[in-house]
Amino acid sequence: MTDITSPPDLTAFGADAALVRVGMLGCGTVGAELLRILDRRADQIARETGVRPVVVRAAVRDLGRRRDVPLDASAFTSDPHEVVTAKDVDVVVEVVGGTEPAGDLVAAALESGKPVVTANKELIARRGPELLEIAEACGVDLLFEAAVGGGIPVIRSVTESLAGEHVRRVLGIVNGTTNYVLTRMSEEGSDFAAALAEAQALGYAEADPSADVEGRDAAQKAAILASLAFGTRVSEADVHAEGITHIHPTDVDMARRLGYAIKLLAIAEVDDAGAVSARVHPAMVPLTHPLASVRLSFNAIFVEGDSAGELMLYGRGAGAGPTAIAVAGDVIDAARNLRQRARGPHVAPPVYRTIRPLTSMSSMFYLRLHVVDRPGVLAAVAGILGRHDVSIRSVIQEGRRDDAELVMVTHLSREADMQATLVELEQLEVVGSVAALLRVVGEEDETP
Amino acid sequence: MTDITSPPDLTAFGADAALVRVGMLGCGTVGAELLRILDRRADQIARETGVRPVVVRAAVRDLGRRRDVPLDASAFTSDPHEVVTAKDVDVVVEVVGGTEPAGDLVAAALESGKPVVTANKELIARRGPELLEIAEACGVDLLFEAAVGGGIPVIRSVTESLAGEHVRRVLGIVNGTTNYVLTRMSEEGSDFAAALAEAQALGYAEADPSADVEGRDAAQKAAILASLAFGTRVSEADVHAEGITHIHPTDVDMARRLGYAIKLLAIAEVDDAGAVSARVHPAMVPLTHPLASVRLSFNAIFVEGDSAGELMLYGRGAGAGPTAIAVAGDVIDAARNLRQRARGPHVAPPVYRTIRPLTSMSSMFYLRLHVVDRPGVLAAVAGILGRHDVSIRSVIQEGRRDDAELVMVTHLSREADMQATLVELEQLEVVGSVAALLRVVGEEDETP
Repeated sequence: MTDITSPPDLTAFGADAALVRVGMLGCGTVGAELLRILDRRADQIARETGVRPVVVRAAVRDLGRRRDVPLDASAFTSDPHEVVTAKDVDVVVEVVGGTEPAGDLVAAALESGKPVVTANKELIARRGPELLEIAEACGVDLLFEAAVGGGIPVIRSVTESLAGEHVRRVLGIVNGTTNYVLTRMSEEGSDFAAALAEAQALGYAEADPSADVEGRDAAQKAAILASLAFGTRVSEADVHAEGITHIHPTDVDMARRLGYAIKLLAIAEVDDAGAVSARVHPAMVPLTHPLASVRLSFNAIFVEGDSAGELMLYGRGAGAGPTAIAVAGDVIDAARNLRQRARGPHVAPPVYRTIRPLTSMSSMFYLRLHVVDRPGVLAAVAGILGRHDVSIRSVIQEGRRDDAELVMVTHLSREADMQATLVELEQLEVVGSVAALLRVVGEEDETP
Repeated sequence: MTDITSPPDLTAFGADAALVRVGMLGCGTVGAELLRILDRRADQIARETGVRPVVVRAAVRDLGRRRDVPLDASAFTSDPHEVVTAKDVDVVVEVVGGTEPAGDLVAAALESGKPVVTANKELIARRGPELLEIAEACGVDLLFEAAVGGGIPVIRSVTESLAGEHVRRVLGIVNGTTNYVLTRMSEEGSDFAAALAEAQALGYAEADPSADVEGRDAAQKAAILASLAFGTRVSEADVHAEGITHIHPTDVDMARRLGYAIKLLAIAEVDDAGAVSARVHPAMVPLTHPLASVRLSFNAIFVEGDSAGELMLYGRGAGAGPTAIAVAGDVIDAARNLRQRARGPHVAPPVYRTIRPLTSMSSMFYLRLHVVDRPGVLAAVAGILGRHDVSIRSVIQEGRRDDAELVMVTHLSREADMQATLVELEQLEVVGSVAALLRVVGEEDETP
């Protein structure tokens, strides 16, 4: 237990480390892990960074709950305003989650001159620009490394290491649940339901997995990544989100045979005119692409820049340890800045950029059709594609009679053309149904 | 061309960006690329970071050489002291390379109160601790993101994002030349000489490739990584370095059959007692390990931490663009700190840590022996291993008569025991020679 009433024991190296008092909003699994990290590694942190963050207060909903954390019982309060406005709190950590009341509490903390560290992707995706403006006006830091990619240092890399870079595209596997499900479908041949049930049993998926499997969690992260990478304002509502619930084992298997893995990608892209696109959808990624090797619940963010070329950051995107270590890094950063009366690098007012709708984008497509096995079917299908300017790169026809399938991979084609193609294909007598449509991402000849 | 005599044109957003005057030591390919980045993206950088770095002077050896760079001819000088002591230079960039005179110039710049950014791994590996001490005493930044992993943000991640982490081990593919050679040997079945010749033809290897293929370049980077990850002082001389010149196609092939890829790894490790080990050697890495997918001239740094778990940073470890973008990020960082009268996070005085010799380490081993195909050979070999406490995990015996080979993978064994085993094996009448000894790294049951 850290006794917060007396000054901490400063070791030789840490003697000149500045004590920085931290107030926490929430104390769930991430909060508890942060307390353990700051307690166990206090001397290491003091020696290596020159600051000694000590948690002095934590606002929790249920004061009666027993918590096995290195924080004195007297430090807990049920009133979060005691944290955000307290005179003896230097830095506020928000690990409550959700948009409200977290958002208003963060705003209040910033307005009372306290830097804030948050792990809350939902909050940043929805109220990030507004909160960053408040932080700017109040001259304090708002840091959120843990909001995307958990322990993976993607925010700091994009905003600091790549400060001089012209980022063209970010491709992210940013949801561990869906990557676990897709990995098991690919490696074990499971169907979606079985793989999801396994993920739930192992704690990689929640009881209600809809935000994950429908791509909404990834869409929030895509909005944050697009905003940071392109210095603009992209909100969750701007992101086209498509999940993995419709991914069929046949397509997972076909992907592998064609040299691809199916991954749920968050894609943020800027074109030469400065217009931005942010979307989430399952994609066929070439097996030689670094993202294809990202297995199980791991996350990875792949960045394409004009100078750096291809860059990938890989690691644990969720879990108490990885999230807490990212929060700890931000707390240390905020504390160092506070000590020096300096600020972190989030100073840029966002630039307005056009957001391109999905229909204006181009992709290579993978298309699987149930067809009648009859002469002339391929000609009829190919004719429709041709009329819509969709050119075919490879075709596989399989099965017999009423159970035949036609699998095609196209060259780069406009999304709008492909959608128009689908409408016509579905009306074609010899086509039973369009069984699958997936976009191919990361091919070397993906660009026209 | 940037006219350095008149103030630059400040756009609306960048109007309040602080002009920061940069002096360069050297103007080779990295320096030229840096000039282009700072010129082309000046407005973006000013808007997004609040600083506007402008190169005002560059010291070069040959003033007469024609350079196609956006810097006025009058800005060049042949006297580097005009850069490091100039009143109108705020930040110094060292891209000369080599230890001298670069080291003394960097020291002089720091001593005259100027933050320094360098891409010079050799200098940091050899004089890093001394120069960091000077920087500390003078209260200015010494930044070197580009010294390890080129455009990969490994230094910033280890020192800032993972500031609260207990890093246990760092595994790095930090030399693009050797990774290119090993990839071609693996994918095309080339032998070492052919793959190296190809790398040279493509510009991935220098005319004299010895520093790369003998592991010395990687050893410098291992020293830097170990020093930063464990807050201590490891110099190049402390690093056991073994190269890839002895890697035989048979072993590359055998590795793949056994489920491994051969990679040249820089390994930095700390044990529970705080003792450090830094070494460079080829290693068998399981094909499912993220490092195994790092192909061609790409680099990757894999970090194992108590909280973050497994983390990997992947990208271009060399080349003008990636190196220059890392330098640009550091210049912006130094400029921002200067503007705020603040400093970067390199404040920790190094802790003394015991450096463990290779012989005290443990590994799983891959061993290939030329043996005589005769009954009792395996028993004789296995007997020697057993007496030295080296237990066998799997065995493959191949070939016939005088051309037989015995391939073994061991469980975790002490390096000293394996070395003693080798001495005895070589004296065994039925063993023609020990054809290969490689360490296995990254297996899940690698730990005892």
